[in-house]
Amino acid sequence: MSEVTPDFSHSGTTIDELERFKERAYEARKTLLEGTGAGNDFLGWLRLPLEYDKKEFARIKAAAGKIRSDSEAFVVIGIGGSYLGAHAAIDFLSGTVQRPGVPDIYYTGNNFSTDSMISIIEAIGDRDFSVNVISKSGTTTETAIAFRIFKKLLEEKYGKEGAAKRIYATTDAKKGALKGMADKNGYTTFTIPDDIGGRFSVLSAVGLLPIAVSGADIDMIMQGAAKMMAICAEDGFRENPALQYAAYRHLMMEREKSVEVLCIYNPSVRSFAGWWQQLYGESEGKDGKGLFPTGVTYSTDLHSIGQFIQDGSRVMFETILYAENSNNRIVIEEDEEDADGLNYLAGKTLAFVNKCAMRGTARAHEVGGTPSLLIRYNKKNEFTLGQLFYFFEFACGVSGYMLGVNPFDQPGVEYYKRNMFRLLGKPGYEEN
Amino acid sequence: MSEVTPDFSHSGTTIDELERFKERAYEARKTLLEGTGAGNDFLGWLRLPLEYDKKEFARIKAAAGKIRSDSEAFVVIGIGGSYLGAHAAIDFLSGTVQRPGVPDIYYTGNNFSTDSMISIIEAIGDRDFSVNVISKSGTTTETAIAFRIFKKLLEEKYGKEGAAKRIYATTDAKKGALKGMADKNGYTTFTIPDDIGGRFSVLSAVGLLPIAVSGADIDMIMQGAAKMMAICAEDGFRENPALQYAAYRHLMMEREKSVEVLCIYNPSVRSFAGWWQQLYGESEGKDGKGLFPTGVTYSTDLHSIGQFIQDGSRVMFETILYAENSNNRIVIEEDEEDADGLNYLAGKTLAFVNKCAMRGTARAHEVGGTPSLLIRYNKKNEFTLGQLFYFFEFACGVSGYMLGVNPFDQPGVEYYKRNMFRLLGKPGYEEN
Repeated sequence: MSEVTPDFSHSGTTIDELERFKERAYEARKTLLEGTGAGNDFLGWLRLPLEYDKKEFARIKAAAGKIRSDSEAFVVIGIGGSYLGAHAAIDFLSGTVQRPGVPDIYYTGNNFSTDSMISIIEAIGDRDFSVNVISKSGTTTETAIAFRIFKKLLEEKYGKEGAAKRIYATTDAKKGALKGMADKNGYTTFTIPDDIGGRFSVLSAVGLLPIAVSGADIDMIMQGAAKMMAICAEDGFRENPALQYAAYRHLMMEREKSVEVLCIYNPSVRSFAGWWQQLYGESEGKDGKGLFPTGVTYSTDLHSIGQFIQDGSRVMFETILYAENSNNRIVIEEDEEDADGLNYLAGKTLAFVNKCAMRGTARAHEVGGTPSLLIRYNKKNEFTLGQLFYFFEFACGVSGYMLGVNPFDQPGVEYYKRNMFRLLGKPGYEEN
Repeated sequence: MSEVTPDFSHSGTTIDELERFKERAYEARKTLLEGTGAGNDFLGWLRLPLEYDKKEFARIKAAAGKIRSDSEAFVVIGIGGSYLGAHAAIDFLSGTVQRPGVPDIYYTGNNFSTDSMISIIEAIGDRDFSVNVISKSGTTTETAIAFRIFKKLLEEKYGKEGAAKRIYATTDAKKGALKGMADKNGYTTFTIPDDIGGRFSVLSAVGLLPIAVSGADIDMIMQGAAKMMAICAEDGFRENPALQYAAYRHLMMEREKSVEVLCIYNPSVRSFAGWWQQLYGESEGKDGKGLFPTGVTYSTDLHSIGQFIQDGSRVMFETILYAENSNNRIVIEEDEEDADGLNYLAGKTLAFVNKCAMRGTARAHEVGGTPSLLIRYNKKNEFTLGQLFYFFEFACGVSGYMLGVNPFDQPGVEYYKRNMFRLLGKPGYEEN
């Protein structure tokens, strides 16, 4: 049985009502599994939890070990799907695993901010560091500029040969600018498979190398994903959380909701919401369709966007991602003066208070016209993380086919680049 | 003249067309300035840039100096408007001012996350620290729990008397649980004025103490705000950026946009977007009205939510907040191999590339049906920050009155609390 469990308590619907979408969901799943739909040349992620390259997997673990042994800082250079999965996983697992000797991890090459670049260079200081540059082509502008800067820093510090031993390129197996540079200079390379798009690539070398560097057990992540893969492919509607989530989103679209708010109750899960935002935004946000995806951290943001969600224009629904169990424990203590009036909570854990906040909020929002699907999972660890990654990916493919879009392309991302290249004076773009 | 300048190049409208809203904007401004509208007991922020308590201001600077001299870490305990303004300012100004001896600043008391609390306690370690607890009542649950924890840590480390010298309470002038504790134990106190709501409080002691601790020049912030105050109160529609921004938002509502995306191009401005989100979400998100406010960081999020904004459902418009000039400079260097094809940018600054990305993106999104108002400011410093705070506050008041809501209350925030208290078993809430 899945450890990722939808809970309809505050959903404004029931599993019975949702069965109305069952046939459409089954149809979409069939299209996905049989590879007969739009974008079917990008389905490599579907069976990845079992059919990954075991030799490369071992090379990833070896490289991570070397990086942990010779680097105090580790720079992940990539944009969009090239870093969001790793960022999500590393933050999600922070504090849950013992990590002696784990380098500080920095993410760059995902913007053109001068301040951001300077702050990362300053933070690294004179510490030993390595770089993982992640780009299918090697010519994505944000990533290429950052790599040019960090490659030079490495070469100044370690010499050209020494630098080459600290550069790990995750890129195309055969072609492209980065692959060419890697071959010429002798960088260690890992492969971005041709049939896996960026936002579905977290369980490939794209995500796995940085995740392994952080000290996480990537075997357990793959096992979790494999478990969810079996559930998604085989189970019926009532046992399949991915089909239920896809169906729920379509019910919300029917009810003319236009914004999906992913609510998390632990700041370390915020980056996971960033990964989810790309997954759903790029997969469904096309042809004038889709739900605007945005993440919030509660209870923090109840004092920010909470008023709006309770009582503003009724354009949203919520998806709550919640761990049933906590890895750590803080107990609220008795205070003899009790000036703050908190003694009624003495002996209770902070996790208990958080759960009451979650339940109370879901109920309040439901009454206010913002229903929510609660997605519960056991606790934060590698096994549940693998399940969650695959759960959201599979549900996304199903939901996209139900919506009638190609969930695996992203044509709109090119428009800003073309305009930018023209303004930058890039050769070949003068007249666009 | 204002250094905060709306630019309508990609707005889908013109200043001429926008003049259609002039009379309504003037009317709303009049209501605001004369204090004749709903919520008029919360207008203390309106003249605050000139009419602040000069003695308290001097005490804030003195306290900040003491904290900087005796603390390596500084813990800001508050939720919503009690910390978002300080967080916005401190991140916005990071890297722009010299800050020898500035303590690391941590924000807590804004959630119930066990992991988050543990990570902050671990990050402080055995370093010397002080605490600023910010709460009008002292009984806000998130804040009160965190304060109970950090007060105990301080008392264990410094004794009860030593702890009292490291606790700074920003609270009600006369009443409430926190004021009582402060008086009894001899904490240094600062005042949350009765006529200023949380989200409008950044230029009171609520925001100013942490901002001063960070090394920023709070006199310059007040001067910037005062300059914008004069512009907002007196200038005509064509010279008044706040009236234009308010009018633009209403044009977008007329066009049935439901989401406002605040786009920033420098990660250090992201917390400012968090402050803005509360300001507009709580002020306008009521009576079934308002624009859902959300922030994005570009070009990062162009590889996440960019596809949706280009080509998904047409529910959004963008407000771009952009610094014309950079405080620092990175030049892209020539590379003799040019394997990445970037040499066409050699000699150009990263700031130039960022500006081309901004302009190119705004144009691409406009063509795709997502227009944007570009709000330009000179550069990141205290003076422009003060202008920006007041600009957005004033525009919010005007926009809220144009919408026909009370921009200064937040009744919806109470609902989750009542449910939570019932679930927690708080005395008096059993039957709710």
